[in-house]
Amino acid sequence: MKKVLLVVIDGLSDRGSKTPLSSAKKPNMDRLAEMGINGIMDTIAPGVRPGSDTGHLALLGYDPYEYYTGRGPIEAAGAGIDVKPGDIAFRVNFGTVEGEGSVFDKVVVDRRAGRISDTDELVKAVNEGIDLSEFGVEFVFRRGSGHRGALVFRGKNLSDKITDTDPHKVGEKVQRCRPLSDDESARRTAKIVNYFMEKAHEILDRHPLNEERAKKGLPKANVLLLRGVGRVPHIPPFESRYGMKLAVIAGTTLIKGIGRILGGDVIEVEGATGSKNTNVKGKIEAALKALETHDFVLLHFKATDELGHDGDFEGKREFIEKLDTHFEPLLKLDFSKVCLIVTADHSTPVTAKEHTGDPVPIVIVHEGVRVDDVKSFDEFSACKGGLCRIRGLDLMNIVTDLIDRAEKFGA
Amino acid sequence: MKKVLLVVIDGLSDRGSKTPLSSAKKPNMDRLAEMGINGIMDTIAPGVRPGSDTGHLALLGYDPYEYYTGRGPIEAAGAGIDVKPGDIAFRVNFGTVEGEGSVFDKVVVDRRAGRISDTDELVKAVNEGIDLSEFGVEFVFRRGSGHRGALVFRGKNLSDKITDTDPHKVGEKVQRCRPLSDDESARRTAKIVNYFMEKAHEILDRHPLNEERAKKGLPKANVLLLRGVGRVPHIPPFESRYGMKLAVIAGTTLIKGIGRILGGDVIEVEGATGSKNTNVKGKIEAALKALETHDFVLLHFKATDELGHDGDFEGKREFIEKLDTHFEPLLKLDFSKVCLIVTADHSTPVTAKEHTGDPVPIVIVHEGVRVDDVKSFDEFSACKGGLCRIRGLDLMNIVTDLIDRAEKFGA
Repeated sequence: MKKVLLVVIDGLSDRGSKTPLSSAKKPNMDRLAEMGINGIMDTIAPGVRPGSDTGHLALLGYDPYEYYTGRGPIEAAGAGIDVKPGDIAFRVNFGTVEGEGSVFDKVVVDRRAGRISDTDELVKAVNEGIDLSEFGVEFVFRRGSGHRGALVFRGKNLSDKITDTDPHKVGEKVQRCRPLSDDESARRTAKIVNYFMEKAHEILDRHPLNEERAKKGLPKANVLLLRGVGRVPHIPPFESRYGMKLAVIAGTTLIKGIGRILGGDVIEVEGATGSKNTNVKGKIEAALKALETHDFVLLHFKATDELGHDGDFEGKREFIEKLDTHFEPLLKLDFSKVCLIVTADHSTPVTAKEHTGDPVPIVIVHEGVRVDDVKSFDEFSACKGGLCRIRGLDLMNIVTDLIDRAEKFGA
Repeated sequence: MKKVLLVVIDGLSDRGSKTPLSSAKKPNMDRLAEMGINGIMDTIAPGVRPGSDTGHLALLGYDPYEYYTGRGPIEAAGAGIDVKPGDIAFRVNFGTVEGEGSVFDKVVVDRRAGRISDTDELVKAVNEGIDLSEFGVEFVFRRGSGHRGALVFRGKNLSDKITDTDPHKVGEKVQRCRPLSDDESARRTAKIVNYFMEKAHEILDRHPLNEERAKKGLPKANVLLLRGVGRVPHIPPFESRYGMKLAVIAGTTLIKGIGRILGGDVIEVEGATGSKNTNVKGKIEAALKALETHDFVLLHFKATDELGHDGDFEGKREFIEKLDTHFEPLLKLDFSKVCLIVTADHSTPVTAKEHTGDPVPIVIVHEGVRVDDVKSFDEFSACKGGLCRIRGLDLMNIVTDLIDRAEKFGA
């Protein structure tokens, strides 16, 4: 059975007439362009600015307009919570509040609690100290990297039509959660969230670890700021949809979350950080190894996006060159058995410092593709390739067809 | 805030291996191609033959399958009637009938009443002489250019599921309006239309101006031929949809109507005729001026379409060359602040003498576009550009993304 390796270089492509990608020295990527069929791709649709979450859903064949319900569910899955359809999930920051009275009277003085990194004890205290059973609700709180975490509420009559408690700004009060729709489940959920907020603040504010931090002059991690709420969607697992076992190799919680929410296996790689110091070699080795046990491997690199957000042209070019040096083993894949795709989830131009709707380059290398005369992997060469301009949602169809796994429609 | 100038050259492109556009000497358009990103565009979808109305709706991001309800509403808006959602609107020709009895017993001998041009008095007489209040209906009748006009019925329980009264052929009787659906509102509307037809004929046939025309041997303008009926759609205004103030500069009622129905400002330019003698210089100057007061300016040229309908290869080529000589100021726009698009609403090949579904060339010039190596603005070069092949409905997404006005979907 043929296998697929999908390499997604986050935010890889740019705008303008000279880009980090087009000016990078990247002989291996260029060799792949030469060996394969090239094109440009609108991950969602022309001009539509994808998030990394919606972009990846589309690349994996899941229409984000149907399946995307907010970032909370994906982050929660990425943080390792075994989310279930219907769960209400939030992204969480440990933050610092000061003032008197209820948590909602207090002012956020640091949205990251001094970028606290060791939150295990605090997370444990919250999980053990709060009981929502009087509401018929269970919750799971998990730490993420640094000051981040994820929170899931599970129970009947819960709604995601509620507001954030994170004011998204220092100097503002913690926001009371409010229902966004006029129904009992939204009102009830907001009430439970506010109860949870108060209790968590009580537990955290007096926690020995925070008292120690205060003594050292560090900001207390004494509030949980909730945002990105979403209801965990009913989403058909990748394996049942495509008959292929999915593995995901990524440094960031978000992409791991995409993998988990689709029922894939997330393969952890030491030193996979999701930034430019990441262990590229280790991730590529892990991906090649995963091809032995899985049918479809998503290998994700994040730093290009970060460097795009930073507006760092040279840094982005250099990271692309670093990636390229490690791409050599990809050239040696047996392309009669493996279909290799190298692309991005969206553009993050250094000039825009944000995701844009500009299409991304894509190359597909596999025995039997219509090899075109594109010889460089960049924004300007790709649009002359044999794929012309495709959409992200088309990719899985194209790939399953190439590897002889597609159903014929009609007779 | 960045601005947009969309130049639509109606029916610009052709079929065949040599076209008016490809053989025209047009150094300024070619320079724009060199400065920008090029492509071909299916205004509606590949092979779908657009009208100028549906084509323009698509270019402005309004799916014509959702918002197009016939030409009547657009012509009525273009004629200056302040149409409201739910109004029933018609295109009208003054025509000439002969014979005895009711208007529906008479035969159309001229569908344009000798191309009568001064209809003000007749329009006034109809507006003053007919009273539909017994039906609970108001109407507004406005003249258009020459023998043309527009008519709007406003009231409860009106339907556009009715037939034309225009037989579309000389030598045929005026058609009685018939309901096209089996419901009371369609039957009732047909009845009101037929009453209106009789009354209008009575008023016009004995009008002094027509008696004078008869004496001079000119055909009487003694009937109103109704066609293109449609219900004015609920259509979100351009400004509320995109946050951009719209200005439209066009010589033809139809395109002005598109502008008005979307809540835009129609800027009148002296000598803007909608044909090949139009004031190109004045229109371009007005467009550049409009960029100071508006965010999105649609500048429309019609003659290329007319000359296409006439099958006039040389005439079309010459008009393109005339346009080009006036395009020089466009090259000097500050493209860090303005996004310029030059394209067409559809092809009107001189060989077909009709709108066809062949894609149109498009160039987008703006700081940051991925400049491709296309150096000529024509059907054959455009398809090698960096946009590849897009759809009309994608254009607004692409443009709002380029000028940093697009929302991100996801995180």
